[in-house]
Amino acid sequence: MTTNMQILLASRPSGWVQESDFEMVKTPLPQAGPGQMLIRIHWLSLDPYMRGRMSSAKSYAKSVDIGEVMVGGAVGEVVASSGGKFAVGEFVVGPLGWQQYAVSNGEGLVRVDPDLVPLSAYLGVAGMPGATAWTGLLEHCRPRAGETVVVSAASGAVGSIVGQLAKMQGCRAVGIAGGKAKCDYTVQELGFDACVDYQAGRLYEDLRAACPDGIDCYFENVGGTVMDNVLRLLNPFSRIALCGMISDYNSVEPYGITNLRSLLVNRVRLQGFIVTDRLDLYARAVQQLAGWVAQGRLRYRETVAEGLENAPKAFIGMLKGANLGKQLVRVA
Amino acid sequence: MTTNMQILLASRPSGWVQESDFEMVKTPLPQAGPGQMLIRIHWLSLDPYMRGRMSSAKSYAKSVDIGEVMVGGAVGEVVASSGGKFAVGEFVVGPLGWQQYAVSNGEGLVRVDPDLVPLSAYLGVAGMPGATAWTGLLEHCRPRAGETVVVSAASGAVGSIVGQLAKMQGCRAVGIAGGKAKCDYTVQELGFDACVDYQAGRLYEDLRAACPDGIDCYFENVGGTVMDNVLRLLNPFSRIALCGMISDYNSVEPYGITNLRSLLVNRVRLQGFIVTDRLDLYARAVQQLAGWVAQGRLRYRETVAEGLENAPKAFIGMLKGANLGKQLVRVA
Repeated sequence: MTTNMQILLASRPSGWVQESDFEMVKTPLPQAGPGQMLIRIHWLSLDPYMRGRMSSAKSYAKSVDIGEVMVGGAVGEVVASSGGKFAVGEFVVGPLGWQQYAVSNGEGLVRVDPDLVPLSAYLGVAGMPGATAWTGLLEHCRPRAGETVVVSAASGAVGSIVGQLAKMQGCRAVGIAGGKAKCDYTVQELGFDACVDYQAGRLYEDLRAACPDGIDCYFENVGGTVMDNVLRLLNPFSRIALCGMISDYNSVEPYGITNLRSLLVNRVRLQGFIVTDRLDLYARAVQQLAGWVAQGRLRYRETVAEGLENAPKAFIGMLKGANLGKQLVRVA
Repeated sequence: MTTNMQILLASRPSGWVQESDFEMVKTPLPQAGPGQMLIRIHWLSLDPYMRGRMSSAKSYAKSVDIGEVMVGGAVGEVVASSGGKFAVGEFVVGPLGWQQYAVSNGEGLVRVDPDLVPLSAYLGVAGMPGATAWTGLLEHCRPRAGETVVVSAASGAVGSIVGQLAKMQGCRAVGIAGGKAKCDYTVQELGFDACVDYQAGRLYEDLRAACPDGIDCYFENVGGTVMDNVLRLLNPFSRIALCGMISDYNSVEPYGITNLRSLLVNRVRLQGFIVTDRLDLYARAVQQLAGWVAQGRLRYRETVAEGLENAPKAFIGMLKGANLGKQLVRVA
């Protein structure tokens, strides 16, 4: 192998992302300079937050520049080291980008154990999405046994963990997902108590039926009309962990939420958050989650695109809800 | 005096309240039974929350029934007692209603000192509105010195205290109010650093100019388009105390908020609250506020309607923003 395949941001999307917003290039295999390592990427993670990085709008992180390698978390193996932080043969996870090989001085990388859980799990249940679910539910929502927890995008990488953690807390776990297959997955395979298919056209009525005692905790990944309907069913002193608003990311005109008065009437606490704000919790969260996976207490599924060249198509599919569970790209 | 004038709820308003939604009746002067007191009301408070009690929609408190005396806080003097909790000649504040005389067993009443601050202040700066400002700002927003605090309905009974408390905390205090007179009042008389007149038609631009370092704390009384514009200027890790959404109370169709993504991007904490949820803080708040008034550190103004028969008109005026500072009715 003497070349490195990379995927660059070619243009900023307006509305839905197109494959033409990306450019695939072949560049010479990079070399590890002093204190650096060459890392061969095995798995690339695709996540909704990347849509924000493609835009120039103000957000919590810097945008990707046009012509720059797309940002992304990945797991790889150290294949060469020039006095770098990790040894050849070790596996690491971190922000390595949409490419086959990355050169790194180790910043932002963490060593992972391929024998505890499968490598790909460090991008999902035992990685950033898992820690996001853990932080939002256990730190921000703080559900008590017997309460009802609702999570949107329930079959996704984050939502699927939220519901399972809610069950571990003794809560009623109710998902919201698009389509019968995703709903069946959360109930039959993940153990949610109920799941509402928002595509069925009776969101409010179905949600009310699934939450006979109202909603105490809401883990929000979606925003828009889903959020507006959840607001109508909140209980007094309920909590919202606002983790994502994926329904807005590809809209030119954002949806107007009309039921915010519920936040006042019910004295709701809402916390917008991203997982990296609470790095003090990250290591503990990932350690607990990996342990629960190893014990068989946490289940997960992955949707795998084969080959880096298929990353753009898989990313667009994920934004439209084509994946079940964590969306990954097998790079090597 | 052998009769008691009372104002009853006659019908539930749809949209703006009409005077015909109230009925004035004269009833025989009530008698204090065993353990009860007869209280002659001096001052009646008019507050935005009363609009909610006129409606049958679910809210945090029970609606007023048709034909029932309108609820309202008032200050009065005990004029007869049949073994009641307070002595004849003492003054009390509490939920005595829209009437000239009330019979009470003392429940919900607190004795007030007419020598510390004027009686009417116990309905405003040293009463429920003051405690609301104190709780929302100091407990929920928790501003730090140097931060920018924005408050809507800035010249009102609550907003005028919020801005002054923000100044005491070493913050930049910026109001939003309707019209030049109200804005001038908050800056020239109350010491706010700036005030934006939302009626001037340049809300976003004027607010941005008034908050050159963005917004760290927002005390919300209004909702609607005011809120939507504030959301665009929030800083990372800012806090919102959601106290009221008066712009919605008289709308048949609530406004759709489109900038909620700011809550995610900036990892905002929002807390809906009403002052009576934190009765643990109430006495301390009122005591501090009354002390600051007595020391001349807190200023306030009142808009006074003369005579109970003018309460409906004054209430409607307040909902439309006709008052400056606390809206009161002089009953006796």
